[in-house]
Amino acid sequence: MKGMDYFFYPKTVAIIGASEKEHKIGHVIMQNMIKAGFKGKLIPINPREEKILGKKCFASVKEAGKTDLAVIAVPAKIVPKIILECGKQKVKAVIIVSAGFNEVGNMKITKELFLAMQKFPKMRVLGPNCLGVLHVKKGIDTLFLPYERLGRTPHGRIAFASQSGAVGSTLIDWASMKSYGINKFVSFGNALDVNVTDLMNYFDEDKETKVICLYMEGLEEGRSFLDTAKKVTKSTPIVVLKGGVTEQGKKAAVSHTGSIAGQSEVVKAAFKQGHMVEAESFEQLFNFARVLANEPLTKGKKIQIITDGGGYAVLATDSIIKNGLELSKMSDKNLEKLRKVVPVHAELKEVIDLTGDATTEMYKKAIELALKDKNVDMILLIVLFPVPMLNKDIVDEIIKFHKKQIKPIVVVSASGKYTEKQKAIMEKEFVPTFSFPKNAVEALKALYDYSLFKGKAKR
Amino acid sequence: MKGMDYFFYPKTVAIIGASEKEHKIGHVIMQNMIKAGFKGKLIPINPREEKILGKKCFASVKEAGKTDLAVIAVPAKIVPKIILECGKQKVKAVIIVSAGFNEVGNMKITKELFLAMQKFPKMRVLGPNCLGVLHVKKGIDTLFLPYERLGRTPHGRIAFASQSGAVGSTLIDWASMKSYGINKFVSFGNALDVNVTDLMNYFDEDKETKVICLYMEGLEEGRSFLDTAKKVTKSTPIVVLKGGVTEQGKKAAVSHTGSIAGQSEVVKAAFKQGHMVEAESFEQLFNFARVLANEPLTKGKKIQIITDGGGYAVLATDSIIKNGLELSKMSDKNLEKLRKVVPVHAELKEVIDLTGDATTEMYKKAIELALKDKNVDMILLIVLFPVPMLNKDIVDEIIKFHKKQIKPIVVVSASGKYTEKQKAIMEKEFVPTFSFPKNAVEALKALYDYSLFKGKAKR
Repeated sequence: MKGMDYFFYPKTVAIIGASEKEHKIGHVIMQNMIKAGFKGKLIPINPREEKILGKKCFASVKEAGKTDLAVIAVPAKIVPKIILECGKQKVKAVIIVSAGFNEVGNMKITKELFLAMQKFPKMRVLGPNCLGVLHVKKGIDTLFLPYERLGRTPHGRIAFASQSGAVGSTLIDWASMKSYGINKFVSFGNALDVNVTDLMNYFDEDKETKVICLYMEGLEEGRSFLDTAKKVTKSTPIVVLKGGVTEQGKKAAVSHTGSIAGQSEVVKAAFKQGHMVEAESFEQLFNFARVLANEPLTKGKKIQIITDGGGYAVLATDSIIKNGLELSKMSDKNLEKLRKVVPVHAELKEVIDLTGDATTEMYKKAIELALKDKNVDMILLIVLFPVPMLNKDIVDEIIKFHKKQIKPIVVVSASGKYTEKQKAIMEKEFVPTFSFPKNAVEALKALYDYSLFKGKAKR
Repeated sequence: MKGMDYFFYPKTVAIIGASEKEHKIGHVIMQNMIKAGFKGKLIPINPREEKILGKKCFASVKEAGKTDLAVIAVPAKIVPKIILECGKQKVKAVIIVSAGFNEVGNMKITKELFLAMQKFPKMRVLGPNCLGVLHVKKGIDTLFLPYERLGRTPHGRIAFASQSGAVGSTLIDWASMKSYGINKFVSFGNALDVNVTDLMNYFDEDKETKVICLYMEGLEEGRSFLDTAKKVTKSTPIVVLKGGVTEQGKKAAVSHTGSIAGQSEVVKAAFKQGHMVEAESFEQLFNFARVLANEPLTKGKKIQIITDGGGYAVLATDSIIKNGLELSKMSDKNLEKLRKVVPVHAELKEVIDLTGDATTEMYKKAIELALKDKNVDMILLIVLFPVPMLNKDIVDEIIKFHKKQIKPIVVVSASGKYTEKQKAIMEKEFVPTFSFPKNAVEALKALYDYSLFKGKAKR
């Protein structure tokens, strides 16, 4: 394993500052590692305790023996000393969750920490002032927020790195509610060692990761960031949301992570030059990421709408045109074939409106034909689940078609609780779902743009 | 009662085309009226049945006797005949849910229906090709979609009229999941008699309605629409979303409801002249409506952000500036008072960042001071519920402050299931909640603009 691997695939993890006291961060992390199902050796470190959560406690890393990953949750002032101990013990990777460094202007202790870190350049350090890592598949969970209040995402194809811990973790919670699949989440905080560039490089080489998702407030070392982005986006799309794009927002960002936000125009230009996909909201960030992670590239910009509700098709059409995309029209031959299985009042023009009498069989036939029709590049399924004749099989059928990865297929289903359950089933099988047409179309636009950049789509 | 009242407050409701067969629309409507708890007399009408859902069935409206509201769910071709019967029986209001008229180009039957309606000009008719009415408080529910698949909204201050039944009903389902309060929902379909202008007038005079929400595809009789909008918006804000704003979207709209979409620029100009608030997405429609319905007007554009997560404040600040609003700054005196109860590392500048150590008490003090401080016009609370020290009382405290209606207060809480529960509690008490800062700020901008129009806010 290389240096960064130890954050995600450690065999032994030491929690420095572990505690039996429930409200202590070190306790919550211990508990969450256990809940996450970590299969390796979990070692609590605390000189004043014997046992923590049933596990033998050690006084220091030295006594604990060989450690791959150490999580430091002790007051800022003793962190540099602990780092020296970790270095001497040849700990491979360290996560410092403790706060109280440069983000609050405490430069003395920050400098001390930095000097300690420099003595062991091979040991990779994440933080300080961060939540660390969530890697569900391997049971790594250093987020010090309890499961009852903060859900964890299912495994998926998106890697997500956030400068802000609060933003990152609440987005994980939100994504978990939506069943969006995320394979690795990293809160990198003040980034004294591991920074966004390191993470982009790492995720690019990670086989599980199909898309990199970033939330950034500051941008330092713009040159290496840009060079890395240019290289990485050739193989792995990067979707980015930047906080602090206005002057006042930047001021707020400085207070928050102590980072220099950078000229908004310069940063935006860097994103563009680096062929990154810029999102304007958190929803967009994950909408773009899900489509880029789970859909094949598109050959063109023609979208086939298949719907059981005319009103949503109107809105979808508006969005398609506004985004510079086009409606596709299937061949007359295919439309004739479809005509045989749909109600007489169904509209089969550019939009295929199966109407409120739609059945799973009708959708099936329409999707089948659209996948074959050479006038169709992408498929936008609008499925209103409350319509009476539509049975539950529709979900399985969509998943089956989607698995073939012939053309991009996304699903729009406005609605409430019943619908959300159906969407969660699809999300778990990597079908991107949306509540409203606008969001889906914007995401397809991002896919089209990336497909153009990759030379797969024609203008 | 006046004519339109009978749609919302009928004492006797006849379901023409009621049936014992579960998949029949007439059956579903019967069932839904019962589930909705309609307290009046519910009369199934069907010449071929004795009893439906335990209620005595009549062969015709004539035999049924005095009827306030008749719901017609029979094939299009016999609808004109039924309308004549209803007219002769002095039925006050009729909802035609049946489709198959001008929306599918069937002009012969449409003309026949129109002529029948003209014979009884006092009888108000909703539809055809519509879902009718949902008025939760009075147990009126003609939506022919089962409760298991389509939720119903709690009672609230928003009236919502939709040209498209599918759009309208799925939005109701979505709003019910979010616990958004809606008092009356009307799907008006082809609008042969009751049209959007009638509904605007009616809702304007309705004491329960604080905001009118519209989804429209076509706009006919533009002049009377504009005149009514101008009049109504003086007392009741109207939020509108127009489907079919692009040429292709308009074509789709014609296929859908048979309506002429109208020149997009002309329609937009009419919205502006009528001082309506135009939304660009369904989410915006309800975001704007909730804030306009539940917040007092604002005196200015200065927003106080109070947060327990710095990252969200950065994004909120960006949105505030982008929307032409301003950050407020509390007086030094008030900030000093606040300083005494917050952690040392809390940031008290324009943004009040209580940090991840925030408690209910800290929020309480900060809100109290912001409500008094004359530099603060509106309050944007960012509450990340997963932070460890924050207890559940925060929800009650926010509701209490909000009830006073001193200044607009909205809540941003990104996150998952635990958080959604807290938000639902607040929504039921009319506190507008949002997942992300952008959406909340856009809604406050709409409130500011309306407050300017009303002469309450200064520029």
